[in-house]
Amino acid sequence: MMKKLIIDMDGVMSDVYGQLARLEKRDSGKDINMNDLIGITELEAFPNCKVHVHEPGFFRTASVMVGSQEAVKYLNNKYELYIVSAGMEFPNGLREKYDWLGEHFPFITWEQIVLCGSKRVISGDIMIDDYAKNLTYFPGEKLMFTQPHNQLTEYPDFKRVNSWEEIVNIL
Amino acid sequence: MMKKLIIDMDGVMSDVYGQLARLEKRDSGKDINMNDLIGITELEAFPNCKVHVHEPGFFRTASVMVGSQEAVKYLNNKYELYIVSAGMEFPNGLREKYDWLGEHFPFITWEQIVLCGSKRVISGDIMIDDYAKNLTYFPGEKLMFTQPHNQLTEYPDFKRVNSWEEIVNIL
Repeated sequence: MMKKLIIDMDGVMSDVYGQLARLEKRDSGKDINMNDLIGITELEAFPNCKVHVHEPGFFRTASVMVGSQEAVKYLNNKYELYIVSAGMEFPNGLREKYDWLGEHFPFITWEQIVLCGSKRVISGDIMIDDYAKNLTYFPGEKLMFTQPHNQLTEYPDFKRVNSWEEIVNIL
Repeated sequence: MMKKLIIDMDGVMSDVYGQLARLEKRDSGKDINMNDLIGITELEAFPNCKVHVHEPGFFRTASVMVGSQEAVKYLNNKYELYIVSAGMEFPNGLREKYDWLGEHFPFITWEQIVLCGSKRVISGDIMIDDYAKNLTYFPGEKLMFTQPHNQLTEYPDFKRVNSWEEIVNIL
């Protein structure tokens, strides 16, 4: 029986930081240097992010994280793979996330998608996520995907992974 | 710590049979007697159901199951409660299900909603569902909610519940 692998979308498959920086630039003209965002929260990094995430198209037009397409395709043959996104806070984005996966990860079937509010009811063998709140309650192996907001924090209970290349080497 | 209670939507909170019978009547003029549907599958009962479930408004305008509102409100104070619906097959219905819950179960927050394809990654202490395929992999206590399609089958691994009144008496 294949192990169940649970993969987060925002900040892991989908480049939310790039999308927020693009919208910040559009609205304020300000160029954001990603190196300045290391160790601060998403809200500190992008003060208008609570507005931008509710904008139509926010999730639908986000870029794909470097290396994620090839990696997820490879892992999809090796694991019982599920994409689990805590997107319920943004109901306009539910269909956008579904369509985004259809465009960029067409080998993922509807049976493999979960859109939730909290990940406290999600079980499996391995979870990849960029937020401690999602990994904490997971019963299996927990991989913390490096993003600027979590980069300076040490998480003794999670294994840190810095790229999709690294994930494929481990899994 | 409160126990995690997982509740299905279609056929448990939402009256899918009533909705399918209404659409069958609209399209063919045929009056469907629910007693004739006992022991046959949904597809046998409603040959056009695969068309009707994709119709805009199908999930949004479904009726609420008798007793479910009071019961879920009561259980929401007693359990860590999640509404888990395998609605990913019908992406047009994702937002409809969210809005339907907002109208009929306004005390349920977005943190408590899960829309998925398969329930194989859902964990918790108690699950209420009308389909064996959803209950089978659940690690906790499994309550089979009686619906015509499951009524004549015996399920030795599940406890059968016939109404929301009965559920409240047990839980």
